[in-house]
Amino acid sequence: MPKTDQHLDIAGLRAGERVDDEIYLVMQKDLRTTANGGMYIHAVLADRTGQIVARLWNETQELYDSMRSDGLLRFRGRVESYKGKPQFIIDGLRSVAPGEVDASAFLPETAHDVEAMWARVLELMRTIQNRDLLALVGCFLNDAVFVEAFKKAPAARGNHHAYLGGLLEHTLNLLEAAELLLPRYPRLSRDLVLAGILLHDAGKTVELSCDTSFNYTDAGQLVGHIVQAATWIQLRAADLERESGQPFPQDLLTALTHLIVSHHGKYEYGSPRLPATGEAFFVHHLDNLDAKLNMVFNAIDKDPDKESRWTQWFPALETRVYKHDPTRA
Amino acid sequence: MPKTDQHLDIAGLRAGERVDDEIYLVMQKDLRTTANGGMYIHAVLADRTGQIVARLWNETQELYDSMRSDGLLRFRGRVESYKGKPQFIIDGLRSVAPGEVDASAFLPETAHDVEAMWARVLELMRTIQNRDLLALVGCFLNDAVFVEAFKKAPAARGNHHAYLGGLLEHTLNLLEAAELLLPRYPRLSRDLVLAGILLHDAGKTVELSCDTSFNYTDAGQLVGHIVQAATWIQLRAADLERESGQPFPQDLLTALTHLIVSHHGKYEYGSPRLPATGEAFFVHHLDNLDAKLNMVFNAIDKDPDKESRWTQWFPALETRVYKHDPTRA
Amino acid sequence: MPKTDQHLDIAGLRAGERVDDEIYLVMQKDLRTTANGGMYIHAVLADRTGQIVARLWNETQELYDSMRSDGLLRFRGRVESYKGKPQFIIDGLRSVAPGEVDASAFLPETAHDVEAMWARVLELMRTIQNRDLLALVGCFLNDAVFVEAFKKAPAARGNHHAYLGGLLEHTLNLLEAAELLLPRYPRLSRDLVLAGILLHDAGKTVELSCDTSFNYTDAGQLVGHIVQAATWIQLRAADLERESGQPFPQDLLTALTHLIVSHHGKYEYGSPRLPATGEAFFVHHLDNLDAKLNMVFNAIDKDPDKESRWTQWFPALETRVYKHDPTRA
Amino acid sequence: MPKTDQHLDIAGLRAGERVDDEIYLVMQKDLRTTANGGMYIHAVLADRTGQIVARLWNETQELYDSMRSDGLLRFRGRVESYKGKPQFIIDGLRSVAPGEVDASAFLPETAHDVEAMWARVLELMRTIQNRDLLALVGCFLNDAVFVEAFKKAPAARGNHHAYLGGLLEHTLNLLEAAELLLPRYPRLSRDLVLAGILLHDAGKTVELSCDTSFNYTDAGQLVGHIVQAATWIQLRAADLERESGQPFPQDLLTALTHLIVSHHGKYEYGSPRLPATGEAFFVHHLDNLDAKLNMVFNAIDKDPDKESRWTQWFPALETRVYKHDPTRA
Amino acid sequence: MPKTDQHLDIAGLRAGERVDDEIYLVMQKDLRTTANGGMYIHAVLADRTGQIVARLWNETQELYDSMRSDGLLRFRGRVESYKGKPQFIIDGLRSVAPGEVDASAFLPETAHDVEAMWARVLELMRTIQNRDLLALVGCFLNDAVFVEAFKKAPAARGNHHAYLGGLLEHTLNLLEAAELLLPRYPRLSRDLVLAGILLHDAGKTVELSCDTSFNYTDAGQLVGHIVQAATWIQLRAADLERESGQPFPQDLLTALTHLIVSHHGKYEYGSPRLPATGEAFFVHHLDNLDAKLNMVFNAIDKDPDKESRWTQWFPALETRVYKHDPTRA
Amino acid sequence: MPKTDQHLDIAGLRAGERVDDEIYLVMQKDLRTTANGGMYIHAVLADRTGQIVARLWNETQELYDSMRSDGLLRFRGRVESYKGKPQFIIDGLRSVAPGEVDASAFLPETAHDVEAMWARVLELMRTIQNRDLLALVGCFLNDAVFVEAFKKAPAARGNHHAYLGGLLEHTLNLLEAAELLLPRYPRLSRDLVLAGILLHDAGKTVELSCDTSFNYTDAGQLVGHIVQAATWIQLRAADLERESGQPFPQDLLTALTHLIVSHHGKYEYGSPRLPATGEAFFVHHLDNLDAKLNMVFNAIDKDPDKESRWTQWFPALETRVYKHDPTRA
Repeated sequence: MPKTDQHLDIAGLRAGERVDDEIYLVMQKDLRTTANGGMYIHAVLADRTGQIVARLWNETQELYDSMRSDGLLRFRGRVESYKGKPQFIIDGLRSVAPGEVDASAFLPETAHDVEAMWARVLELMRTIQNRDLLALVGCFLNDAVFVEAFKKAPAARGNHHAYLGGLLEHTLNLLEAAELLLPRYPRLSRDLVLAGILLHDAGKTVELSCDTSFNYTDAGQLVGHIVQAATWIQLRAADLERESGQPFPQDLLTALTHLIVSHHGKYEYGSPRLPATGEAFFVHHLDNLDAKLNMVFNAIDKDPDKESRWTQWFPALETRVYKHDPTRA
Repeated sequence: MPKTDQHLDIAGLRAGERVDDEIYLVMQKDLRTTANGGMYIHAVLADRTGQIVARLWNETQELYDSMRSDGLLRFRGRVESYKGKPQFIIDGLRSVAPGEVDASAFLPETAHDVEAMWARVLELMRTIQNRDLLALVGCFLNDAVFVEAFKKAPAARGNHHAYLGGLLEHTLNLLEAAELLLPRYPRLSRDLVLAGILLHDAGKTVELSCDTSFNYTDAGQLVGHIVQAATWIQLRAADLERESGQPFPQDLLTALTHLIVSHHGKYEYGSPRLPATGEAFFVHHLDNLDAKLNMVFNAIDKDPDKESRWTQWFPALETRVYKHDPTRA
Repeated sequence: MPKTDQHLDIAGLRAGERVDDEIYLVMQKDLRTTANGGMYIHAVLADRTGQIVARLWNETQELYDSMRSDGLLRFRGRVESYKGKPQFIIDGLRSVAPGEVDASAFLPETAHDVEAMWARVLELMRTIQNRDLLALVGCFLNDAVFVEAFKKAPAARGNHHAYLGGLLEHTLNLLEAAELLLPRYPRLSRDLVLAGILLHDAGKTVELSCDTSFNYTDAGQLVGHIVQAATWIQLRAADLERESGQPFPQDLLTALTHLIVSHHGKYEYGSPRLPATGEAFFVHHLDNLDAKLNMVFNAIDKDPDKESRWTQWFPALETRVYKHDPTRA
Repeated sequence: MPKTDQHLDIAGLRAGERVDDEIYLVMQKDLRTTANGGMYIHAVLADRTGQIVARLWNETQELYDSMRSDGLLRFRGRVESYKGKPQFIIDGLRSVAPGEVDASAFLPETAHDVEAMWARVLELMRTIQNRDLLALVGCFLNDAVFVEAFKKAPAARGNHHAYLGGLLEHTLNLLEAAELLLPRYPRLSRDLVLAGILLHDAGKTVELSCDTSFNYTDAGQLVGHIVQAATWIQLRAADLERESGQPFPQDLLTALTHLIVSHHGKYEYGSPRLPATGEAFFVHHLDNLDAKLNMVFNAIDKDPDKESRWTQWFPALETRVYKHDPTRA
Repeated sequence: MPKTDQHLDIAGLRAGERVDDEIYLVMQKDLRTTANGGMYIHAVLADRTGQIVARLWNETQELYDSMRSDGLLRFRGRVESYKGKPQFIIDGLRSVAPGEVDASAFLPETAHDVEAMWARVLELMRTIQNRDLLALVGCFLNDAVFVEAFKKAPAARGNHHAYLGGLLEHTLNLLEAAELLLPRYPRLSRDLVLAGILLHDAGKTVELSCDTSFNYTDAGQLVGHIVQAATWIQLRAADLERESGQPFPQDLLTALTHLIVSHHGKYEYGSPRLPATGEAFFVHHLDNLDAKLNMVFNAIDKDPDKESRWTQWFPALETRVYKHDPTRA
Repeated sequence: MPKTDQHLDIAGLRAGERVDDEIYLVMQKDLRTTANGGMYIHAVLADRTGQIVARLWNETQELYDSMRSDGLLRFRGRVESYKGKPQFIIDGLRSVAPGEVDASAFLPETAHDVEAMWARVLELMRTIQNRDLLALVGCFLNDAVFVEAFKKAPAARGNHHAYLGGLLEHTLNLLEAAELLLPRYPRLSRDLVLAGILLHDAGKTVELSCDTSFNYTDAGQLVGHIVQAATWIQLRAADLERESGQPFPQDLLTALTHLIVSHHGKYEYGSPRLPATGEAFFVHHLDNLDAKLNMVFNAIDKDPDKESRWTQWFPALETRVYKHDPTRA
């Protein structure tokens, strides 16, 4: 959300309020017709705080064409109440100069402090004992372009941690959970687990674009984040070999790559290999646990019907979610 | 293992050693024939420490019939080396009086202190805040017959924690993991999670017999531990209602039962319902994680080929397990 | 359907008819907008005989909010013809006092005589020879609350026998089919089959609510009718044990419960166990046959296009149904 | 079983008995070696009443080669007891002249009277009302070659009704069940159901050979009984058209053929179409019920361990079968 | 497309143009309502060259009822621009006399010369060496009714080659591919492959109707093209037998039929048998390759968004298709 | 096969022949026991031409331990006839000095000329028009280590082209098929197809070892050939970028990598992505066709029963293969 005093958060708009000149992101637009020949635009506007339905009466073809879905515009209008919910009636709109604002400022973002999370990631990574693995991980941690993308990327397009900083938050969740549980499974290689978690979804930085919305890139759809991260590991190892003149331990590379290529746990979820080491099962299940719980909370928080004990059907969970907690009743 | 000085552990038998009078469990027996008309018995003997192949030459039909698979016998004989492994040559055998020894003493058992584990379970259970849930859980914890069975049962017939005390160990593993991770997911009901973990596999106490081997009971195969535990919860609640004259909160009963009936996570694994609450997903994934890791370590420990980097195929994991840890090489 | 002379059945409404003061059930309501700013309500009204589309012009927000979906209202209006079908134009509506009428009277009900069907069930159940099983079944048959619910419940939410009395009708269908076929399979236990059929779907009485529509209850979704019925069997057996001071035969309990927990026939249909006895296969297939045929007739009867030889796609049958019978042509 | 007074039934052979000159079917033969260089034949002999293990000491290569698996031989020898079971020691053998005996006389056969069953089939078929359908069915019933094959064929290679006359017995079972249940489902076309049942497995007459064992023919494996029966129906209809000069009603042909091509109920069981009419669902479920129950009884009857409450795993049922009936205990 | 100078192709209609009296096919029609009580028809008109949205204001019930979906009508009206696309405003319409025009002239057709394709098919078929197979294939090639239907039928209802002549085009594609690849796999029987390809989809001539749209016939849905073609082969062989008085080689018939019944390659795609010969695998994979590539090009050509690098989701391909070719960029 | 005049090919060994000093590969060995206490070794010996069963009487423990499975030994002995097949009786054996012979000379190899095949691959690759793609492919073709491994590797461990040179032969088969079929699908990018085929299985060079047998390497099991080849493409592109100082076209890299990661066609076969371009479908189906046909011929050639019209069950084909060709009968 742009940190300027002018901006009126969408979440705060109330019926009766006037909006003089505010930038919002156009999420959807539809041209709808009326029986007497008129047309109006039905649109959804968004900023980081939420979304609102908007209507623009007496639309013209030019106006409609000038609106770009997934684009930013300046709006003038007023808020009415429709079926008990606020609705934005557009009185005018005009374009935003390129570069004037950062579109990503209109996307949802993590509720946590990105820099603090990243610092914690670094702290944990530094505890890796194996020198080769530490060096390899260091290649990623010291790559400013990668780090910037890693801090910004969502963890998924929609189901879980689908907000700026979501990848970092999800990754740190797994690292913290591993840190807590590893002492109970001392036969696992702590080093491999930490490195594997850091990189398991790192390919999401290129699988998903996060400019004005979260969408798959071409490479994301054609190659995917799993193969991408596996490739990066070998590219970095090759870099280290060139720098040091020493071969990078092949077994280590293989075992780390295995954590990436097996972390979805099943072929039908796009893993080209199934988990075959204790570390691979560990990373897969922690990942699954955090993702599923985030989906559960997500389903509850976004459910429009606050009275119902059940959310709507949530496809990725294959269920509706029961919201009622009888121990707190 | 019977804690008497007479017993010679199978794990300790060495070629050249004589056995004068030792009780072992007969795991398998086969009557094999030779070309010249003779017959011999090929058997597998076991105690808690391991198993050994045994042969009995010049067998008679009566002798063969007198051996009961899954039964105890007193053996006399000697240990030879065969293909580099010890082999037991039986010179004589006789029956064991009923009740003379406890057959379960010949089954593998947990490496942990059963009473200490149980005390920790009690300690954790006492932290449940919801009074109704605490009362319900109390019905189980105060039932001496249930507790004795719970401390003794394995967690599965063969794949994971398949030893006396295995159910308790697996259950405590989940409770400890929950205790560590719950603070990271404060929206979950800690009370439901703890009670759900305690009872999720409690039906194993009747699903599996553990007299002389771990096998499914008739009820185990025809009804299963999931339905059994769900039934017990309602029986206990009905008991509480009779005692108190008050209705037990139905929502609470339903939510707890849901954790039981959904904890396998998928229909094809025998769950009649899929997880639909955050607590249900949490219990399912912790259960899966602990079971899978136990299988991984189990596959490694039992693999006969110590030189190979791979174990044999482990059906429940759908893979061979890679044993090599390159970070410790 | 309320048996009062005032009630105008929806199935009988014709264009031109006036309705002065009639109670109908509101199945759906939508607030729709017009281009010139007006709004109207589009609703579906129902009674036991059928459904009709209704419109209310010049609606106000208050009026809309006062209509409760799944609720009863008194309507005043007229019937018009719209695309050849009757349409109800609402001129006025007002609330119905709580308790004034029984909402379930507006739900569809079985075409058969409930008391006659129930008497036949009792007659068949009395032929059970095994005394323990007879006693157990008696616990259910003598429980007035259970019997009332059993007579009222539908057999499913929508696919088959989805009307008041549907559970009873479906259960009796299976009992009659069993009565006819059992003599051809004399190795089966008639006693187990009869008791199993009675109870196989008995849990539907709490899985589905049937107040103003057929919907899953919380317990229905979180636990399900299979586990519920399995639980009841054990609760009743415990009751018998308390009364008689004798243990109820465990094998009998297990075999009966197996019929319940396996009757869906496959894990993916929510059976936690697969059929493993002749009786279980018998009950499963009779159940499937009656349910599928009811779906077929249902698909045909509800198909809107009377001219087509094919019904619309019927998801639970995974097909469209062919309506034409060439032997009668 | 050859109805001659000379034949000694295998089921009746007892230890100590001598066999002077008896014809048996060789089901399996193996040449086994002994450590001192000798060889012996291990074989399984069969007639309609059962099977027996046989050994032939001091075998020569020529003798071994002269025995044909799935062939008939004359045997001389004696019966010994081995592990409590009779075993046949072959003292001599010689060939059987081609055509001397009917090999199929050594295969298991139905326990019911074939001619009586066939008469009942005819009786039921004559009740078909639709003249065209009756004519079509008549083409099959009046084809002596078809009828002979139909009376002889098994219903499956091994899982159910795998004996001479099994196809007829299974088909009649379905007809009788239909006759009993059709009055409860009066909307179904009785004519189509009866004709569909008669022909649903008729292709088995060419799918399986039943000369000296039950095996798939080439056509059985490459084309299958479903397509075969569907083809015959059209061939017969074409015959009728040629005879009568009238077109056979296409709808009738299609609806009948549908019963054949959909009767396995699922694509994965080899049905090229799924049931789409009430009659198709009816035939599919009756077929499934009778086949599954026959498998259940088959699994029980053939289970070698009479003491166990469970049979061995029966793949086609996806379970072991529970043999204990607690209502008769 | 009707080759008359009067016809205005839909693909060529431009805003501003008037249409005085033109025949188009009505693909869809909907009666839509306006808030002030008016109604209008929203329809889609088509000819071979494309489709256009049409509206008819101030519609009456009679007019609406007089339009038949999948029927031809004469239209008067004008073309307007709506959201940048042409839209047809209907001013009047009247019926077309039965038989006046050929409705199939309004369906899409192959871009290739039908007679030239057919001549090439004949040329290839004549190269079959096996005399029996040649005779059998000849029965089809010399059947004028079959040939006419074969030249006209589409290869599928919608996914691939869904246009008049599509079956012929698809069949010839496979024949040409086989002609190219067979020399690389000389162990395959060229004769069987050619005959199998000719007939693999021949049943589509009756599975799909192509009068005014491509839809499944009753026989198509109830029996399907696979069983149909398998039946024809046997009917033709029976004809040959009658003519020649010689039995047709059964093995040949079986092997050819196998190619038909297995060519979908998997049970779930409706093949009652899986490929079991080299020829069957060959035909299955060539068929699959040509069908899938046609779907890919189809998805690209019909995708409405010419700017996107991705088509919409294409269900039969289980993917969106990537349209960009970086080697030509 | 070692090209020395001393070597006696296993395929040529006949009963009565003596072997004085010959090197063979030990494929399997078993220590078998006799009733009178003796032991003998049962082994399978192999060279490139075939395999033979061998026995060694009066074996000692030392001798047995000195034989290494998957190792080479020098043998002395004689060939006898056993059940009509030759059998090797070992009279003596001794070790082979390390490096004395090339073990891979004892593995089966392609029947085609490796250098001629490779030359043809180079010829086809040089026709790639796109300069960037040509440069990328050149990185592989000019890498001597890669080329040597590529010429030697099998295409699979056992199912198809499982011999030295099999990867090259399979790859060339696909290239030739593509060369033949591409003119019929001119919309496909010939450049992408050729490059994609070259690299689709290139990762097999490290997935499988081919020293003394074909087995998965650790990297083969943990990472797999698909991810490996995808990684190499990016490594090579990075090399090109470093050399040229120009960025490699990202779209091209992505589209080529897509062909690799999708070529198994389904998730369950280990493809992390499904085909989404015409080229990807093309490569997938050609690959499948060639692999399946090689399996079919393989199943036929290796089937031990030359009289049967059916091979044994071939798991990867999910069928037995029908060997009879009725057009050549």
